Amino acid sequence: MHSTPPVYRTTALSALPARAIVREVGLRDGLQSIQTILPTAQKIEWVRAAHAAGQREIEVGSFVPPRLMPQLADTADVLAFAKTLPGLFASVLVPNLKGAERAIEGGADLMVMPLSASHAHSLANLRKTPDEVVAELGRIRAARDASGSRTLIEGGVGTAWGCTLQGDVKVPEVLRLLQALLDAGADRVSLADTVGYANPYGVSTLVEQALKMAGDRFFCGHFHDTRGLALANAAAALQLGVTRFDASLAGIGGCPHAPGASGNAATEDLAFMLEACGVDTGLDIPALLALRARVAGWLAGEATHGTLWRAGLPSNFQPTAAH
Amino acid sequence: MHSTPPVYRTTALSALPARAIVREVGLRDGLQSIQTILPTAQKIEWVRAAHAAGQREIEVGSFVPPRLMPQLADTADVLAFAKTLPGLFASVLVPNLKGAERAIEGGADLMVMPLSASHAHSLANLRKTPDEVVAELGRIRAARDASGSRTLIEGGVGTAWGCTLQGDVKVPEVLRLLQALLDAGADRVSLADTVGYANPYGVSTLVEQALKMAGDRFFCGHFHDTRGLALANAAAALQLGVTRFDASLAGIGGCPHAPGASGNAATEDLAFMLEACGVDTGLDIPALLALRARVAGWLAGEATHGTLWRAGLPSNFQPTAAH
Repeated sequence: MHSTPPVYRTTALSALPARAIVREVGLRDGLQSIQTILPTAQKIEWVRAAHAAGQREIEVGSFVPPRLMPQLADTADVLAFAKTLPGLFASVLVPNLKGAERAIEGGADLMVMPLSASHAHSLANLRKTPDEVVAELGRIRAARDASGSRTLIEGGVGTAWGCTLQGDVKVPEVLRLLQALLDAGADRVSLADTVGYANPYGVSTLVEQALKMAGDRFFCGHFHDTRGLALANAAAALQLGVTRFDASLAGIGGCPHAPGASGNAATEDLAFMLEACGVDTGLDIPALLALRARVAGWLAGEATHGTLWRAGLPSNFQPTAAH
Repeated sequence: MHSTPPVYRTTALSALPARAIVREVGLRDGLQSIQTILPTAQKIEWVRAAHAAGQREIEVGSFVPPRLMPQLADTADVLAFAKTLPGLFASVLVPNLKGAERAIEGGADLMVMPLSASHAHSLANLRKTPDEVVAELGRIRAARDASGSRTLIEGGVGTAWGCTLQGDVKVPEVLRLLQALLDAGADRVSLADTVGYANPYGVSTLVEQALKMAGDRFFCGHFHDTRGLALANAAAALQLGVTRFDASLAGIGGCPHAPGASGNAATEDLAFMLEACGVDTGLDIPALLALRARVAGWLAGEATHGTLWRAGLPSNFQPTAAH
């Protein structure tokens, strides 16, 4: 079993956070992984309806070269629309300084710079070592500060619980990279289970140490449901006080290494788990389910996931805020 | 939020149980809920292969009148085969004294008597109040003792976290019924989320109190995946020291109130979660996945569930016992 002594304690479930945020990443992590190219008008409608359902943090796209990811070529337009919605905190993914300059120019509230803790995955996907990505984040920070922009910088460490190419990713290496990102100027850091290798025990172990290191600068947990554990993993992080989780409506996204497998945690299922546990998300779940039905219609032929859309809310369900 | 003071503490994930048992209930809870009637020879092959994959507790069927549940009419035959397998602990469901007499006659290692904590559900499904079910368990205990049989009696409290008909089911009522079952002579008691209304917070709250009341006589957690939370709920119970969980291969079973929805936790997914968390199950997951493929073939046309069969084990996965 576990021969090493316990290094952390979980928060009792009775002391769960009062509130948590579900950050919608379906428009970025979801759409980038599927074939269908959603028209800008539908993306804008998605953002509008998600905001109306209570979502206040949305990752609207990615500033990558359009030839690499034509699905997200209209990110600047979607971002411009998102900025018109009151109280919406709009983020974008940026792979490098060039993308960051576009995020700053577009007035994103936050830009996420992904780093893969797996060297093999980093080289294969980003053609950079993790430390080269850290250095790029330093250049992004310098550019952001020089511009006077208020766009926050999040360093997102992916494949944090393992990787299809490399297998194990060691906790000390993940922690080293989190610290390196903070030292290079990241305002926030996050952990992502990019390929669905995490489990609740491993989440608890790593997140507890990440929280000790980063404190309030630890921003978000990102759990893929490839092997069915996204919600159990989110619950394990929630117990430790994590209050922000990425999710994709209808669980879209998938995994290039596991055809047909689930993508991110499904927004509507995660929202249900949180609210059922008494954690206020501010979300209108029936409105999310209605939006899910529309988005699933736009993405006809693509795999969608999740369970709540089929089963419906329990008959006695009440949002936490109504208790 | 939660205005009542905390009443329990979870076990730290670092102190998870070293071992846990996945009790296969696909042959009972799964098959009773679907149209296909599996031939006895296939059920026997399922039991044989499950045993070969390391499963040591299997609920082989239910002693209900065949006209009510023709799918399980051959329970005595399957039980007789199960008893030939070394080290296999074979259980059956019994709805009443008549069923219990057949379980005793067949030499079942354990018989599960279901009780629904929801009065509305109990009347609709069993045509008895919960307290009438408790009284029947007392008669079963008397018959078992008079026969000299060693068949254990488990009182299984279903709809323990709510019910589609009644909505809320109150914790004090569930605890009262658990105690009443123990007082009436149950050797073991269990809790079941029959309709997928539970959440990790509610599981933690109720299981902690059930463990205080029943101690080692608390036997098993049974979580349906109707709303995607079966594994998160199992993880919450595991943290408190629960070491036995019901599951159905391929998640078969469904929910009569939610067409197409998932049934029980999928055996193979639950086994993966436990093993990935370092909890030894004794299970050979690749063998379970191979069996899943065969059973899914036998049940062609029926809804199957789960995620691991599609994504496969992580490339770096090792069973806990091999660490």
